[in-house]
Formats: sequence, C-alpha cells, structure tokens
Amino acid sequence: MIKIINTLDENGSVEKEIETLLNRSQLEFGEVNKSVEDIVLNVRDNKDSAVLEYTEKFDGVRLESLLVTEKEIEEAYNDCDKELIEALEEAKQNIWDYHSKQLNNSWIDNSKKGIMLGQVYNPIEKVGIYVPGGTAPYPSTVLMNAVPAKVAGVEEIVMVTPPGKDGKVNKHILASAKIAGVDKIFKVGGAQGIAALAFGTETIPKVYKIVGPGNIYVAIAKRLVYGYVDIDMIAGPSEILVIADETANPEYVAADLLSQAEHDTLASSILVTTSAEIAEQVKEELRKQTEVLSRKDIIEKSLKDFGAIIVAKDLEEAIKLSNAIAPEHLELMVQNPFEIISEIKNAGAIFLGQYSPEPLGDYFAGPNHTLPTSSTAKFYSPLSTDDFVKKSSLIYYNRENLEKNKDKIIKIAESEGLTAHANSIRVRFK
Amino acid sequence: MIKIINTLDENGSVEKEIETLLNRSQLEFGEVNKSVEDIVLNVRDNKDSAVLEYTEKFDGVRLESLLVTEKEIEEAYNDCDKELIEALEEAKQNIWDYHSKQLNNSWIDNSKKGIMLGQVYNPIEKVGIYVPGGTAPYPSTVLMNAVPAKVAGVEEIVMVTPPGKDGKVNKHILASAKIAGVDKIFKVGGAQGIAALAFGTETIPKVYKIVGPGNIYVAIAKRLVYGYVDIDMIAGPSEILVIADETANPEYVAADLLSQAEHDTLASSILVTTSAEIAEQVKEELRKQTEVLSRKDIIEKSLKDFGAIIVAKDLEEAIKLSNAIAPEHLELMVQNPFEIISEIKNAGAIFLGQYSPEPLGDYFAGPNHTLPTSSTAKFYSPLSTDDFVKKSSLIYYNRENLEKNKDKIIKIAESEGLTAHANSIRVRFK
Repeated sequence: MIKIINTLDENGSVEKEIETLLNRSQLEFGEVNKSVEDIVLNVRDNKDSAVLEYTEKFDGVRLESLLVTEKEIEEAYNDCDKELIEALEEAKQNIWDYHSKQLNNSWIDNSKKGIMLGQVYNPIEKVGIYVPGGTAPYPSTVLMNAVPAKVAGVEEIVMVTPPGKDGKVNKHILASAKIAGVDKIFKVGGAQGIAALAFGTETIPKVYKIVGPGNIYVAIAKRLVYGYVDIDMIAGPSEILVIADETANPEYVAADLLSQAEHDTLASSILVTTSAEIAEQVKEELRKQTEVLSRKDIIEKSLKDFGAIIVAKDLEEAIKLSNAIAPEHLELMVQNPFEIISEIKNAGAIFLGQYSPEPLGDYFAGPNHTLPTSSTAKFYSPLSTDDFVKKSSLIYYNRENLEKNKDKIIKIAESEGLTAHANSIRVRFK
Repeated sequence: MIKIINTLDENGSVEKEIETLLNRSQLEFGEVNKSVEDIVLNVRDNKDSAVLEYTEKFDGVRLESLLVTEKEIEEAYNDCDKELIEALEEAKQNIWDYHSKQLNNSWIDNSKKGIMLGQVYNPIEKVGIYVPGGTAPYPSTVLMNAVPAKVAGVEEIVMVTPPGKDGKVNKHILASAKIAGVDKIFKVGGAQGIAALAFGTETIPKVYKIVGPGNIYVAIAKRLVYGYVDIDMIAGPSEILVIADETANPEYVAADLLSQAEHDTLASSILVTTSAEIAEQVKEELRKQTEVLSRKDIIEKSLKDFGAIIVAKDLEEAIKLSNAIAPEHLELMVQNPFEIISEIKNAGAIFLGQYSPEPLGDYFAGPNHTLPTSSTAKFYSPLSTDDFVKKSSLIYYNRENLEKNKDKIIKIAESEGLTAHANSIRVRFK
C-alpha cells in the first residue's frame, strides 16, 4: 500500500523518496538496441518491402497495401458509437480553440532608420504522427497530436499505426484521424513505422518531424533518427502530484491519484498535503476505491513502488517539493489555487481546484495531454503549435548603416581569425 | 574550382548536386563512440576527479581548480583590445534588443464563464553553455548563446570551455562571458565538459539544458545526454545560399560565398542566379579574391567539393531550389528582396539586399548566429529565447462546467479502457 511520509521526520526519508522518483528513468547508455538499428537501416534501404516484411513478422499480417483507404475510414467512422463521435468532435474543437491561441505572428523591428530585423514563422511542411495500436488504442492521442499540427498550418500530416492480425486499424483511431484532419494513414507500427516516416518509402512520404508516443522500440527508433528529422520528445514514465490543504476532498484526491496509477506500474502518484488528517483519509479512500477498479493490479503495484503521501509543514514547503519533482500533472486542491500559480516553476499541466481533475485535461478541456514526464518539466513543455512551426531571422541593413558599423564587425571577425568574413565587409567599401 | 550548372541542362545535374549537398551529414548509426560513452559515465560517477584526469589527458594541463576566478576574468577583460571590447559590447546590446522581442507573455483564455485555460512561461532555471577553445576561439559564440538565456530570465548560466596548456582560458572568451553576464565559468572541454554539465560534479552545477557548438566528441556526448537534459541541436556542416539576379554585384556575392567557405572544408557555398553573366563574373571574382585570403586552402577545397553556381531560368525556380536545400544562411541579392520573403519557406536566416552580408548577422545585427544547418531549417529554428523558457498549461473548470461535460469525458475514457479515469469524474457527481 502507499506510504505516508512526514517532512518533519529526521531520517531524510522525503529526500530519499524524491530521489527514487527522479531516478525512475535512467539513461540507457550502451544499450542502443541493435535490433532496432537493423530495422531502421533495412527500412531506409529496402523501403516498402522491408516494411511489409516486418509487419508480417511483428503484427502477424501480410498486407496487400499499406495505405488505409477512404472507404476503410468511412466504415470505421460510421461504425463508432455516435456519442463517442460527438464527444471526440467537441474535444477536437476545444483542442483547436486552445492551440489557436498559441500561434505567434511574424514580426519586424524597424525602430532604426535603414535597418529592418525580424522573425518569420512558417509551418513545418510535413509531419508524421505515430499512434500505438494494441489492446487499448487511444483516440485522444490522435487528436492531441494532429490538431496542433493542423492549427499550425502543416500541409501534410501522415499517420502510422500498427494493424491488427486482421489487417485492420482500430475504428476509434480511424474515426479520430478523420475528425482531426489527418491526410494519410498507413498500417505500420514499431521501429519500422518510425523509419518509414524518417526516410520515406515508395508509398509512405518522408516527413520532417515525428511526434507521438510508443513503446520502447518506437522510442529507440525515434532517438536514432533524431537530428535527421526532428522528434517531439522521448517520453518516460508519467506522474501526478496533488498539493492538497485541509479544504481538499479526500475522495476526489484519491480518485485522481488512481487515474494516474492505472496507466502502468511505473506511473507515480504523489500527494503532498499540509494536513495529516487528509493524508490518512486519502490513504483510506485509495484502498476503498481501488477495490472496484478494473486495473486494480497495476494500480496496487504502482502505488506501492512509486506512490507516496507526503505531509508537509506548510504550503510553501509543499510547493518547494513539487518544484523539485517537476511533475507532469500537478493538481492544486487548495483553498485559493490561483494565488500560488506564480510559485509553480516546474510542471507540465496545472489543474486548479476541486473540479479540474486530470482526465478533464487528458481528454477534453483543450490543452495538450502530451506533457513532459519524469521531471523533464524542468526543461520541456507540453506539445504545442510551437512544435509544428519554425522560424527564420530577417536581416536588412542599408549601405549607410553597414558603413557606420563596418569597423566593429571587421574587428570581431579578425579576433576570430576569419579573414574572409572581414573581407566580405571590406569589399563593399573599397 | 567551383562548377557552374544550368538548370536547363537535360542531364539532371542540378538534382544530383542538391542530393550531394543534402547528404553531407549522414546518420552515424552504430558508431556511438564507445570512448565518449566511457568518458560520460566516468564523469557521472567520479565527478571532479574524472574531469581533472581527462583535462590532464586531453588538454595537457593538471589544474588545481576548475573554476575561473573573478580575478582571471578581470585580468582577461582588461588585457583585451579596447576597440574589440566596444564592438562586443555593442553587439551584445543588439543581440539583447533583438531577443527581447522574442519573449512571449503568459496568457489566459477566460472566454467561457466558469472556465479558465492558459499557458504560463517560466525560464529554465539552470543552463550550460559549451564554448570551444583551440586555436580560433569565438567570442561571438559566447554572446550568441548566453545573451538569449539571460534575456529569457535563466537564473544560473554555467559556461564550460577547455583551458590551454598553460591552464588559462582565452582572454576574448572570458571578456565576452563577462559582457554577456555568464554566472560561472569552468575550465573543462570535450565530452567531459558536457557530462559535467549534465550530471554535475562537486564544483560544477548540474544544469537542465546544454547549448553551444563543439567538435565531434562534444556532439556525441550531447546526443548521449539528450533526454536526461535538453540540448539545442546537433549541428552539422554549415552553408550559405545566395539568390542573385542581374542587379547583384558579383564582387559582393563572391565575398559572401567565401566567408562561408572559409569555415571548414565541409562548408557549402551556393549561388543560384537568374543571370548567366553574373554566374561567370562571380566565378572569376571567387578566383581573384581567394588568392589573398589567409584560409585559401580550406576555401578551395570547400568550393570544389560543396560549392556550386546554379543558373536558374527564373526567380521562381531559384526560390524553389533554395527551399529544397533549406540553407542555414540565405542572401537575397535581388532587386526587391522584400517582395519574395513570403516565398521563402525553409531558411535559418535571410539576409536582404546588397548591404546585409552574412558576417553582419554572424557578429553584430542582433539575430542569433546559431542556425539550423544541413537542411534542418526544414524543421529547426535559430536559437532564441524560446530555447530557454518552458511552458505549463493551466486548466480550471468550476463544478457546473465539469458536470455539464462529465458524460463526454467518461465516454472517451471508457473507449480507452481507462476506468480509473472515468472514476475520477464520477466520484465528483455521485
């Protein structure tokens, strides 16, 4: 069962606990999987034929064609629960609205006469989205990755996802892709799917950036092609941290911790509370609610290994602990959550108050659910339209301004030993 | 000598040429340098003692202390050419002004009653900057990496740079660091410098992001620690592409091509011109100007291997070629450069007109000189304040709004088989 730790304990158990959490995802030096590399190189060199071969080997189906047809998409969409379609449509609109606010304008600075500097935004032309298949396909993943790309103006969104043994793609995945506006869908998963997107094949277009979650083979393949194309991030185990004061509802707190714990046994659910009473009540609620949940075994292991209830001496200490952990999801179940936003330095998404539980953000509210995991919120951000645009600098000087500054430019160039750089200024003023 | 190719030639030589350029930087699968990995792991485990050992081995000096003292910095600064200091100070101000315009405001969307969504920006707390040493130290690199971090609000900027055999750091590097406002400087280079920043040692603070250029050992080390900390990019060979019409001055065009060619033998300098006459004149200018430049040997090899003059049938074709190459530096030496900015889809920095040569951007104008190389402008951007901030999403729903949407959220959660997610909504409305 989950443990309760008090920060006033003298034995440093809080520090030890945080250390454990921060070390869930260690670097895997020297274990660049040789088999993944073989797959990636084989797909690069032999394209479709290699892809078809691996699909037969790993997904157990010999495909006639990799492309999902319009007809397959239509059939899948029509075969879905209408209420689910409506929920996904509304989620899509919320995601669209939120991400539209992230777009930046190109700008110029013409404050000095004869000089114009600026920054221009252009969408990345072609983007690939990886969507896992398997037993629990996530339609929300399709929306969260494709919609921001669409909002950013990406011209071609190519999705890859593994087929089932029957050669079909899950209907919820196809319906979401249709809703999100994905341009092309191909039946290929694993490292071979990543390689196909990175290099292109006879039927699958090469893209410039690959986003989306996946298993360890997908993650290693993404790392291998990184630099040749861009990738979103290498996601590690995920986590929730709830900061609760004595006003929090222990039933809600427990339910939210459990929603994270069910993801997988490496998931981490942490409560930091200023109330020893709430700590005990949440522990009891966790026990009670877990009993009736379908993913009970995963939850119990995850809570035992990476769960913790920490009793902090005050809100300030609670926030400090949270900033050190840099959680993917942070819920502020305190009397005035808005007042402490400014103190939160490291977190993927911040959920405010009693009625903003993590699943609201996972599925519906609009902000992205692709978030920095495993303490990487110290340097990474949620997936956004920024991930699908790129910038170019603009530099214009007229003759007069270049002449005025020529000696300074030449001075720096020569201090670096780059005489042709100096020459490029000098030839203009001989 | 540089070759001239006409796009009207039927033998497809333009396509072949572009292929060569795009393939300068291939993936180095399977060549993750074992020795770099050993260094990184040794520094992680043995910290300062490993760093001191490698510094003795690779830089030829046994250091007493890794930290550069205030006294050393002051002495270096005072020892510099005063005109150089003034030039660097003015460059710093220009870089500061330009990058200040890149900062985004945190924002909220409260257009719906009872709902608040938003996005909050926070600076990355600690950033490391790698600055190469060696025979040609680049003070401009210090400014271009440190100033944007400072503008973004990074609290602690830690610089590492290899010492010379005398145990000292180049004075121009130290002076630039002082001008830029670097907080701490350590005498350590190579893979050991990257590892020290990624993991921290007894004296060198661990950082969350590492930026700055370096040799192949530095690049491999950065790739190894990527994910554990963030990195800027893995820079490949760099390039310039000049689009010139008949109004361009061939002397200027040649000088600018040469300023790129002198960097290293893998550098690529390309002219795409709509005028066969300009093509010939630039070729002749290249020959003439190269004669008197100090880095003649590098230039000749670079122009021969990766230089090209391409005669395009019109401006539209020239732009299309440029977008396919996605050059790091793009100069538009045409009658009305402003008119075609909208057509430029892929480029790191765009230099407009006859008096905006590449070195103006490298040293002085303000936009960053750390630019996406080797066609990565298709998906990467110039270094900016965006690289030193991270975002958190904000989500607030009141009870009424969560209740109104609860069935839709539960519907999606259950379609994904995540019952604890559904439970987290349900417990609030029992």
